[in-house]
Amino acid sequence: MPVKAEIIAIGTEILLGEIVDTNSAFIARELPELGIDLYYKSVVGDNLGRIVETLRRAWERSDLIITTGGLGPTADDLTREGIAALVGEEPYVDPELEARLRAFFAARGYPMPESNIKQAWLLPSARALPNPRGTAPGWWVEKEGRIVVAMPGVPAELERMWREEVKPELERRFATEVLVTRTLKTIGIGEGTVDEMARPLYGTPGIGIGTYARADGVHIRIGAKGRTREEAWARIRPVEAELERIFGTAIWGKDDDTLEGVIGDLLKERRETVSTMESCTAGLLASTLADPPGASSYFVGALVTYQTEQKIAAGVPAETIAAHGVVSRETAIAMARAAQERFGTSYAVGITGVLGPDPLEGVAPGTVHIGVAAPGGVTASLMTSMNQGRAMVKRRAVTSALLLLRRAILGELQTS
Amino acid sequence: MPVKAEIIAIGTEILLGEIVDTNSAFIARELPELGIDLYYKSVVGDNLGRIVETLRRAWERSDLIITTGGLGPTADDLTREGIAALVGEEPYVDPELEARLRAFFAARGYPMPESNIKQAWLLPSARALPNPRGTAPGWWVEKEGRIVVAMPGVPAELERMWREEVKPELERRFATEVLVTRTLKTIGIGEGTVDEMARPLYGTPGIGIGTYARADGVHIRIGAKGRTREEAWARIRPVEAELERIFGTAIWGKDDDTLEGVIGDLLKERRETVSTMESCTAGLLASTLADPPGASSYFVGALVTYQTEQKIAAGVPAETIAAHGVVSRETAIAMARAAQERFGTSYAVGITGVLGPDPLEGVAPGTVHIGVAAPGGVTASLMTSMNQGRAMVKRRAVTSALLLLRRAILGELQTS
Repeated sequence: MPVKAEIIAIGTEILLGEIVDTNSAFIARELPELGIDLYYKSVVGDNLGRIVETLRRAWERSDLIITTGGLGPTADDLTREGIAALVGEEPYVDPELEARLRAFFAARGYPMPESNIKQAWLLPSARALPNPRGTAPGWWVEKEGRIVVAMPGVPAELERMWREEVKPELERRFATEVLVTRTLKTIGIGEGTVDEMARPLYGTPGIGIGTYARADGVHIRIGAKGRTREEAWARIRPVEAELERIFGTAIWGKDDDTLEGVIGDLLKERRETVSTMESCTAGLLASTLADPPGASSYFVGALVTYQTEQKIAAGVPAETIAAHGVVSRETAIAMARAAQERFGTSYAVGITGVLGPDPLEGVAPGTVHIGVAAPGGVTASLMTSMNQGRAMVKRRAVTSALLLLRRAILGELQTS
Repeated sequence: MPVKAEIIAIGTEILLGEIVDTNSAFIARELPELGIDLYYKSVVGDNLGRIVETLRRAWERSDLIITTGGLGPTADDLTREGIAALVGEEPYVDPELEARLRAFFAARGYPMPESNIKQAWLLPSARALPNPRGTAPGWWVEKEGRIVVAMPGVPAELERMWREEVKPELERRFATEVLVTRTLKTIGIGEGTVDEMARPLYGTPGIGIGTYARADGVHIRIGAKGRTREEAWARIRPVEAELERIFGTAIWGKDDDTLEGVIGDLLKERRETVSTMESCTAGLLASTLADPPGASSYFVGALVTYQTEQKIAAGVPAETIAAHGVVSRETAIAMARAAQERFGTSYAVGITGVLGPDPLEGVAPGTVHIGVAAPGGVTASLMTSMNQGRAMVKRRAVTSALLLLRRAILGELQTS
């Protein structure tokens, strides 16, 4: 019988929405592939009575309780106290954890506030889960056939602890039936149309298919269960192949692929390089292109020319700007060409647009022109226009630029 | 008696953590200032039976039910069907909504899939809430003294609908007792120490105080209720003044202030300008500095010099790099000086570091040097070192750079 799990997010900040609980979602996504069923998700504030009550109810109905948060050093951080009350044990200061904690502060030259000492607590039934990214170790508590796993609320700390400490142990103990998923990421087709195109496969036995609109296009998720990963994969593979046939090059990646990762791999493979000249995105495209590890082998540099004089100084012909406007297809292409020449790269992207809230030179907010220069004098451009606020326009512009760049690298450019 | 509200997030993707529910958190944060008490938060998948059941339970115990999601065009989007079943009414196609929907598709040159027509549905008890950012209008349903507000799941669409349509109406009808909060944002002091320093004020009657560790420092949140905003503010003001006295210039901003916004305001006020030269952050600092509306009045430009030759070409002396290494205090300062000169700005920031996962020239991953050049040849630098993965190192470097730049503008620089 599958293990019944339950997630309890602890923290008034989460209950009141002062911070968004990304941790529960992260864990919920991870459990299916371990064959663990998630039955409940709840949020409780920083109140010892309510924490203990919530833990007790979970103890009665679940095999595995995963808590997040409440492991900090302050009086509000009550997860340890709650678990101690749940299992009826007294916390004690573990000398090894204490030494590590004091060393952490000493290395940074801060005095350790004495309230931090509870981050060195353990229980007779608890072992510590190392947390090299912070001061709060997690707890793995095991008693009367139940497991309580307490992890810190800081996502970077939790995610490392989950992957390195908790998941491998759960996998070793419980994985019987696994769920395997494959996500295919498409671009250029609306969600309704993707849904219609994929519909013939919806009835495939043992397979679940869903479509999801995302910033980088519409994702198609295929899921299958099996006693082993191989068995589940054997169900997924023919469906995946059929979807690949239906969608062709509209599929740009799968699973954890990012556009910048896919582009980075293409450029590495071809030993080609890229640079940018950006106005409204102000370096966000360059920053995104440089995100993958090893980006220095293909990402050369970028110029942020926020003001018109900067564009001209960087090699954009003043006549182009005068004739077509600073926010125009022609200026975007001229920016791409100037970057390509200046940085000596195979490809270059130019972006100019109006984030808003006000129009610029009569151009409506939300309008962004993207130009790509490819080897051999080939250029292409793209205009996006949707006024959803500065931050969103900026992100969409970066995504559109990455998509155009990918097509340029694949030689699919419609020159224009 | 305060209105009892409940939030229901609808969507299997949210239940299974495939997307993170930021909407419930957003709404939860907004309700207190309307004097509306939030009692329940729940998540239900895309299943009509369970949606209706969840809505019925909410109908029995709450005055105001706010749903998010499930308003898309596909067969999985069942919020409208659920509400229709709840109130026992038949949906009909509203001609005006239908015309607007068809115009939306026509303007983009797409055919409208016929399944989209349900986005033009209404009920006798429902009026439409405009959604200029998408195709799905919201619903305001009122019957038997209860209100159901259905909003789309796309955060940008939901947030606009909330601010422009829903919140003003709720405020007009219900606001009796309001909660007012003030957040003071500090930097340079650990959470434990902030907690100790603020503790003398924790007992102030009618006031709640909490501290929260964030990427941009530790936040102190003061909350107070009152029959009117003025009454609540009168309680907050003396506490705020006392905290300002205790923390002094360690407080860099309040409430929705961002570091880039605070810096932008300082630069505008002083008619000064800024530029950057970035290596490991690859333009993310420039992009962040340019985020506030009106940034073009102080943000001039940036150079991303990802490779060493680019740094030299941009004016960093080759000898500096040879003598101290490309990731060094000296190179960071030289980058700042070169940007200051090239862009002719009052201030400039240089950043060089190692994101990882591998060391660079013997420098450990996570090491970042930040240099700031201020008017009159003043420079300062800062080293951060914490290896939490590429993305985190990058974000921390940007935050540290903004904090150093703020101190430079305020004339608090320790030249080094």
